[in-house]
Amino acid sequence: MPTDSSTMNRQCRLAARPVGLPKPTDWNFVDEARAAPQDGEFLVKLRYISLDPAMRGWMNEGRSYIRPVEIGDVMRASGVGEVIDSRSESFPVGAHVACVFGVQKYAVSDGSGVLRVDPSLAPLPKFLSVLGAPGLTAYFGLLDIGRPEPGQTVVVSAAAGAVGQIVGQIAKIKGCRAVGIAGGPEKCRFIVDELGFDAAVDYKNGGLRDALRAQCPDRIDVYFDNVGGDILDAALTLLARHARVVICGAISQYNEAGPRRGPANYMSLLVDRARMEGFLVFDFFSRYPEAIGVMARWIAEGRLRSREDIVEGIEHFPAALLRLFSGENFGKLMLEV
Amino acid sequence: MPTDSSTMNRQCRLAARPVGLPKPTDWNFVDEARAAPQDGEFLVKLRYISLDPAMRGWMNEGRSYIRPVEIGDVMRASGVGEVIDSRSESFPVGAHVACVFGVQKYAVSDGSGVLRVDPSLAPLPKFLSVLGAPGLTAYFGLLDIGRPEPGQTVVVSAAAGAVGQIVGQIAKIKGCRAVGIAGGPEKCRFIVDELGFDAAVDYKNGGLRDALRAQCPDRIDVYFDNVGGDILDAALTLLARHARVVICGAISQYNEAGPRRGPANYMSLLVDRARMEGFLVFDFFSRYPEAIGVMARWIAEGRLRSREDIVEGIEHFPAALLRLFSGENFGKLMLEV
Repeated sequence: MPTDSSTMNRQCRLAARPVGLPKPTDWNFVDEARAAPQDGEFLVKLRYISLDPAMRGWMNEGRSYIRPVEIGDVMRASGVGEVIDSRSESFPVGAHVACVFGVQKYAVSDGSGVLRVDPSLAPLPKFLSVLGAPGLTAYFGLLDIGRPEPGQTVVVSAAAGAVGQIVGQIAKIKGCRAVGIAGGPEKCRFIVDELGFDAAVDYKNGGLRDALRAQCPDRIDVYFDNVGGDILDAALTLLARHARVVICGAISQYNEAGPRRGPANYMSLLVDRARMEGFLVFDFFSRYPEAIGVMARWIAEGRLRSREDIVEGIEHFPAALLRLFSGENFGKLMLEV
Repeated sequence: MPTDSSTMNRQCRLAARPVGLPKPTDWNFVDEARAAPQDGEFLVKLRYISLDPAMRGWMNEGRSYIRPVEIGDVMRASGVGEVIDSRSESFPVGAHVACVFGVQKYAVSDGSGVLRVDPSLAPLPKFLSVLGAPGLTAYFGLLDIGRPEPGQTVVVSAAAGAVGQIVGQIAKIKGCRAVGIAGGPEKCRFIVDELGFDAAVDYKNGGLRDALRAQCPDRIDVYFDNVGGDILDAALTLLARHARVVICGAISQYNEAGPRRGPANYMSLLVDRARMEGFLVFDFFSRYPEAIGVMARWIAEGRLRSREDIVEGIEHFPAALLRLFSGENFGKLMLEV
């Protein structure tokens, strides 16, 4: 029997495909009876639910790396929680688990794709942040796609965000110069003073390209891009010979109703013999334990910090999601259920 | 003493920096006394002069991979010719040589960067075509940057052009499916019937993306881009997992007076875990002999053909150059002096 007495499950479902920024009417909250686990299954009480820029893409129709969320479906989301009822030997009551459980209070799972997490290693929210998809994205994107070498310059956009904050710190651990692009003095101070980046460039300050050039006297060896648009174009003009541009996201473009804007300066790839490469963290699934082990050690050694931005209440999902696109959120954004 | 009795040298000099397409007034033809070689130097009588899309970039100010041609300079161009007067032991009278000699009838050289060519291997124009920079560009760009594997699909734009015609044939030699994008039925017939491409897509026919998709049932593993613009965007929507996009040129964008257009669909790099990479053939200089040896063997075996588009008379340089950008020329464009 479940250790939780509530029997209702609150869910956030996709009601309509948004055009541009998602509106409140694109969502539908539903209360329905909680499902019971069958043989081999278990019931998870969600504790934290991740909000990610990629969610905006999942709401669109059309070919992508994952099928779209259908109208009427529970919105797709990663989460971390506790098993409160179980008919599975691998996931007993009391186990902590992380997976794509959706924007809801409870989820039933058969264990596929589920990771056991060890809450003695770090507080639960960290498993959606530095020890979850954003941290893994930073780790594999920077090290396997960007391949920075000691002494090289690594620039990351959305540097105070979930992925960016980890990218810059790993760059430092690897002996690189880490420069972050972020919006506003508070975020810029944070990445330099609290995370140890070498420099920050405030894109809201104007003159982005000149400011970036001033912080990258040897040009840019690895540019890790989360934003696209003008910031990507500025970075492209400052590439070093044989630079690597890691395409992780394009948050500035996700809500464009019209055609997206491509990087006008892409011919820098030719002039600078450089490479632009995309990746998806899922492809590195078999190496997650390696990365989590390494990053947990860095955390224990005090070399890797992360900031979480936690909003309470599943009802706030629609409004909280918008903060990702306004540049308002600061650190890894998640809901506490 | 020179074996040529003329003592005047006709030169084409850059008179103004073009905005958009070069105009006749951007050029200046000058006749001046031919220079005489000093100790260690030699005098070349140019036979063929290469016309290349990259020339348009050399006429602009600003940072690039090579310094701009200055106003008043002889226009930079590769050429092949014969030594007719020499005070150099390495380059005796009668030797055939290729180098960046400029758009002029005669050039004096000290031998730096000059290649001796063997006219018994192939007719002289081939040393500006398949055995010159275009062929080397195709060879290293496809094999070292694109890295096609047998059975994969290789697509090349400007497929009837100097580089494109070689790219598709090397792809075939390597066991790939070769699909060329070209303008008009004559070029499309040529690359399939005479060069052995598997298929051609006529971009002037409309419906480019659908036509390309029909010819690439397994999507595109290597896209070798010479043109940029709409064609690059169409190809990006059809990439296979882990595809390589080789950025060799962007001829559709070279004469844009305004900002260039970036590839709007670049986020396909993420969805398809793909890479877009630029290169410059000069970086492979030390491996030119390897490539020329391999390609000369393929030519001898009848497996590698090339078409040259030869315009007679140095005076026609300004008009001939424009043919590169109108899509009018067919095969490697050059002047016969």
